[in-house]
Amino acid sequence: MKTKILHLLILFFFAMVSSHSQAPDKLTLMPWPQDLEVESGFQAIQPGFTLAIQGAGAASRLENASTRFLRYLGDKTGTFLEVGYPLFGQTQNATMIIEIQEEAVLGLDNDESYELEILTDKVSLKAQTDIGALRGLSTLKQLISVQNGAYGFPQVRIKDAPRFPWRGLMLDVSRHFMPVEVVKRNLDAMAFVKLNVLHWHLSDDQGFRVEVKSLPNLHERASDGMYYTQEQIRDIVRYADERGIRVVPEFDVPGHATAILTAYPEYASNLNLRYSLERNSGIFDPTLDPTNEEVYTFLDTLFKEVAPLFPDTYFHIGGDENEGKHWDENSQIQRFMAENEIPDNHELQTYFNIRLEKILNGYGKKLMGWEEIMTPNMPKTALIHSWRGVNEGMEPGESLIKAVKNGYQTILSNGYYIDLMLSVEDHYLVDPMPEQELTEEEQNRILGGEATMWSELVTPLTIDTRVWPRTAAIAERFWSSQEMRDLDDMHRRLKAISLKLEGLGIRHIQVREYLLRNIANYNDTGALRELMQISEPLKIYTRNSGGTQYQVYSPFTLFADACTPDAVDAKPFERAVESYVASSNAADLVVIEEYLGKWGTLYERLLEIEQDAPLVKPILPYAKRIREISTRLLEGLEEGKLRKKDVVDIQDLLKEKDEPSQNLDVELAVKDEILELATFLSDK
Amino acid sequence: MKTKILHLLILFFFAMVSSHSQAPDKLTLMPWPQDLEVESGFQAIQPGFTLAIQGAGAASRLENASTRFLRYLGDKTGTFLEVGYPLFGQTQNATMIIEIQEEAVLGLDNDESYELEILTDKVSLKAQTDIGALRGLSTLKQLISVQNGAYGFPQVRIKDAPRFPWRGLMLDVSRHFMPVEVVKRNLDAMAFVKLNVLHWHLSDDQGFRVEVKSLPNLHERASDGMYYTQEQIRDIVRYADERGIRVVPEFDVPGHATAILTAYPEYASNLNLRYSLERNSGIFDPTLDPTNEEVYTFLDTLFKEVAPLFPDTYFHIGGDENEGKHWDENSQIQRFMAENEIPDNHELQTYFNIRLEKILNGYGKKLMGWEEIMTPNMPKTALIHSWRGVNEGMEPGESLIKAVKNGYQTILSNGYYIDLMLSVEDHYLVDPMPEQELTEEEQNRILGGEATMWSELVTPLTIDTRVWPRTAAIAERFWSSQEMRDLDDMHRRLKAISLKLEGLGIRHIQVREYLLRNIANYNDTGALRELMQISEPLKIYTRNSGGTQYQVYSPFTLFADACTPDAVDAKPFERAVESYVASSNAADLVVIEEYLGKWGTLYERLLEIEQDAPLVKPILPYAKRIREISTRLLEGLEEGKLRKKDVVDIQDLLKEKDEPSQNLDVELAVKDEILELATFLSDK
Repeated sequence: MKTKILHLLILFFFAMVSSHSQAPDKLTLMPWPQDLEVESGFQAIQPGFTLAIQGAGAASRLENASTRFLRYLGDKTGTFLEVGYPLFGQTQNATMIIEIQEEAVLGLDNDESYELEILTDKVSLKAQTDIGALRGLSTLKQLISVQNGAYGFPQVRIKDAPRFPWRGLMLDVSRHFMPVEVVKRNLDAMAFVKLNVLHWHLSDDQGFRVEVKSLPNLHERASDGMYYTQEQIRDIVRYADERGIRVVPEFDVPGHATAILTAYPEYASNLNLRYSLERNSGIFDPTLDPTNEEVYTFLDTLFKEVAPLFPDTYFHIGGDENEGKHWDENSQIQRFMAENEIPDNHELQTYFNIRLEKILNGYGKKLMGWEEIMTPNMPKTALIHSWRGVNEGMEPGESLIKAVKNGYQTILSNGYYIDLMLSVEDHYLVDPMPEQELTEEEQNRILGGEATMWSELVTPLTIDTRVWPRTAAIAERFWSSQEMRDLDDMHRRLKAISLKLEGLGIRHIQVREYLLRNIANYNDTGALRELMQISEPLKIYTRNSGGTQYQVYSPFTLFADACTPDAVDAKPFERAVESYVASSNAADLVVIEEYLGKWGTLYERLLEIEQDAPLVKPILPYAKRIREISTRLLEGLEEGKLRKKDVVDIQDLLKEKDEPSQNLDVELAVKDEILELATFLSDK
Repeated sequence: MKTKILHLLILFFFAMVSSHSQAPDKLTLMPWPQDLEVESGFQAIQPGFTLAIQGAGAASRLENASTRFLRYLGDKTGTFLEVGYPLFGQTQNATMIIEIQEEAVLGLDNDESYELEILTDKVSLKAQTDIGALRGLSTLKQLISVQNGAYGFPQVRIKDAPRFPWRGLMLDVSRHFMPVEVVKRNLDAMAFVKLNVLHWHLSDDQGFRVEVKSLPNLHERASDGMYYTQEQIRDIVRYADERGIRVVPEFDVPGHATAILTAYPEYASNLNLRYSLERNSGIFDPTLDPTNEEVYTFLDTLFKEVAPLFPDTYFHIGGDENEGKHWDENSQIQRFMAENEIPDNHELQTYFNIRLEKILNGYGKKLMGWEEIMTPNMPKTALIHSWRGVNEGMEPGESLIKAVKNGYQTILSNGYYIDLMLSVEDHYLVDPMPEQELTEEEQNRILGGEATMWSELVTPLTIDTRVWPRTAAIAERFWSSQEMRDLDDMHRRLKAISLKLEGLGIRHIQVREYLLRNIANYNDTGALRELMQISEPLKIYTRNSGGTQYQVYSPFTLFADACTPDAVDAKPFERAVESYVASSNAADLVVIEEYLGKWGTLYERLLEIEQDAPLVKPILPYAKRIREISTRLLEGLEEGKLRKKDVVDIQDLLKEKDEPSQNLDVELAVKDEILELATFLSDK
């Protein structure tokens, strides 16, 4: 934890030498830097802009990042840069000079701090390592803005370093495979918001996604032909490294093993089943047999081949959600437990994990796993990935505290499950550091956190809309000061960052438009778009209750797929209603009436295209209820009062659910505000 | 040419057994089938839809294509198919049965014919080969439509086969590299419109794009790090094969060789130069030395390694635009020519080509090259790629006729240069078969054609907007009957096909919206969009005159990049003006006034965002001229007459060019109609 202490020292130093930032309310940085001063000056970007690298600096990582930076600058601003490449050495005349002391080997203890100073004619970026310089380049990209009709950089002075060394995004590529380009463009976006760990969930019940030459059944029989070749893995790991991002692979065992057992059923705890890839979602029984010596030979063979593909020290073995049903049913396993005095399934899994850790240590790896691996006998060398919370009947972060108190290092994912389709606010306010008092030593064991993108209901087409922009706010939580908790300011900056992500290839905006065009069968999408702006996909796994409504190959091109959390019209409507209820302000009334008037038209407008757009049909009852609600409220606003009966009707309309078989699977994002308004009007 | 004759026989057979199609004016197929009957029935797509493959049929190519077909069906229509995979064998109860006789090895003589019959409860697809079945599946995808509010297939009977066996798209990945996913999504779109050759232009002055292990300087020093690994090449070739698409590689020699000479300068005709990758566009002097024996050893080494990556018989050696300047200047080369009685540079190149052909033959390849290789001594075994035309001071198709008369097989690209930014109409009406009378033997030597996507001004971001949708119409020219020449019907169908291409991952619609958002710096894009709908990029290489205004790394994120040929509002405006001028119809006047009224507002609306969107600034003078023109015309329409002075002013405003330094680089797509209207009003 040397790094951690170093960071604290640096932060302390920053606090000493600079006053607090001068309300730079126009900057849209995310994560927000630890220390920032803004002056009124501005450097317009000119074709003669040049960039020089000094110090240990011909580091190819920094050279390539600088080249990408210049391309981004040109493309974003339309500037025809005369020099498209970074210069090297004693080039004091360059507009921008990057100076680093050393080229880092990517790891948990990298120094990621940097100092950025922008004057009206110079840019200086200094960092101990090339990784720090990369973080500074991301900041600089985000600083591009307009003054007096020209693109440029505002005059700022930034000293920055991350709060946590582990800032991750987990991508589940088993439930739905994600091709190379999907992973790459998300790595670009991760670098843009200074995330530094790609946790790659490579195997699960629905598919095993890595070519394993010594165990070819894995990719040949357990992937539907959708897997990464080893060259592709190396390519992605290199791509990530170039962006200062570590790659931690996960091979989930002993549970979540249907794919592995489809390939090699002889390692199952139940040898009587015929295994095939799982098509539904949920927790399934197939489990490796921890009492079978050949299972360890198999895993040794697997790890031996895949470990060198991933240079990072950490290796995630999953270990979650194994309920041990097949262990209970297997008399041989029961006998083994009795003979070896293993009291329960948890300790049997610990026996398994300890054997795995030895194998992994042999290949230079440290074991990490989901929190279920934390049993009394589990060695303290394991890294505990805390994930369970309210949904699993536990306190949020309960296992995190238990882990650090028991001497384990840990990272937090509970609170960062972006597949739950919750508002960004819910994630942003969760802090990896619990409120409970911890010793400094215990605090230092909390390395950071990870947003988790489980992909049961997510395809290569829609994944960008699920990861972004919310993950940018989580990235800020992991990087910036704990004090950053202003939701309005977060929203302001997130909106800008969301748009800028397009320039990195993220398709979260474009894809939603395409989905609407497809739903409308290329008729007018106006009404669908307006409806989308107040609709959100069902939350907390209610979209796929039972795990069988949607299967792996169901269509994910529906209205719910076009919708996202934080429906864009919900916030302004909420503000208007709250203000109106508080002050009966006429301006708020105008806003409210405008929204309600618009929503009142959606049903008719959808009816106009429905005959030529079958996917619109399941949306009609929902739009009809919204029309009814809007009409009642508009009448109430006009009359200055709503009858009790109307309020009851509105409550009923809001409660009414669409046919689950219709797979509409969205909810109205403004229902609380509608109820608030209705109640206010009836109380008058 | 056995295939050709077989096709003719099949077509004759079709013509005998079926009456002509019943004006199926709602179908949007492209290419249009050779023979089609439509009944009034309709088969709605149900969750219980199943697909069975019979015959030689567990062919993996067809199995995978059928799986993709089912996914497409589900995604497009939102149907939760109960069986997501094709069934095999005697499954007579399946909704759809595909029956093939043989699995083809991809080649020029593949039988691509198929018969498709759709009843209200059954689909039958029969073909000699799996390739034919693939073509039928593409037709079936295009047939998905809506009746009575449900997605399904119209009741049709189709017998179909291609007119030409060589139907290609050339992608230039040298001027701008195109990553794997760009090539793959374009292969998907090619298959959708039944193109069957990807001509892959892999080397040129600006970059060499293939990993060559025995000559590593090629990819290491002459690619800016942007090249395909051999595994990626194999992956793309396999991906193409799965879609029934041959891949013909091109390594351009002896000219267009700056990249090769950057890697290995010792093979240059001028040994005194320091070679580096070309950043501009144009025709450059660096050329291999055909009198240096080591050049042949080098090319033998290169071809030996790359030939096995491409299973296709044909191998394109370029051979174009070598002006031999460095040959003239090299006394050793001049001596060699004298000693060997080689009269001129053309024959020196022939000497070079003949040596290359021997090397390629040794690796089982047939040589093809651009038409310049057709010199008197060139063996008739070479395939001649005809490309020059009016721009090069020649008659269109001149070399094509010369080639077939001289006994060469040939394909046509003149007329299909989609980088010229011409209207789809210009390409659609060009036929590979010249009007001049040819013997049947000569006709049979014309194998087909290729659209060519040169990439000087095209990036991975914008390429889809340049290739599509126009290439779909060219594909129809290569596949369908020569009689298909109805431009209105082509436009009607192309519009539908263009939208459907989105479902295959083609980003031509989404990218333009993104570019407008970036130009507007995320302000309102409405005015930009309306302006885009009447603006087209400069045509016939005038956008980059001199080849130095834009370099490889210039920004291609400008307004001209968001515009495309066939600006969408030009056609309706043209129809209204023509009709109004002919009949002074009041309805036309309404349309015209609506357009002019809208165009008159664009300048003001752009002014509103200009301060916050620097890329809007270069567009303002253009929008201002359009406002001026619109205002004058509206006044003229109101008064029923235009003064001569106004007409002259309008003419001047239309002639006025924007500052080239501003890189606006678009032209007004409605200028002819505006002039027509102005003249009409002044003549009144």
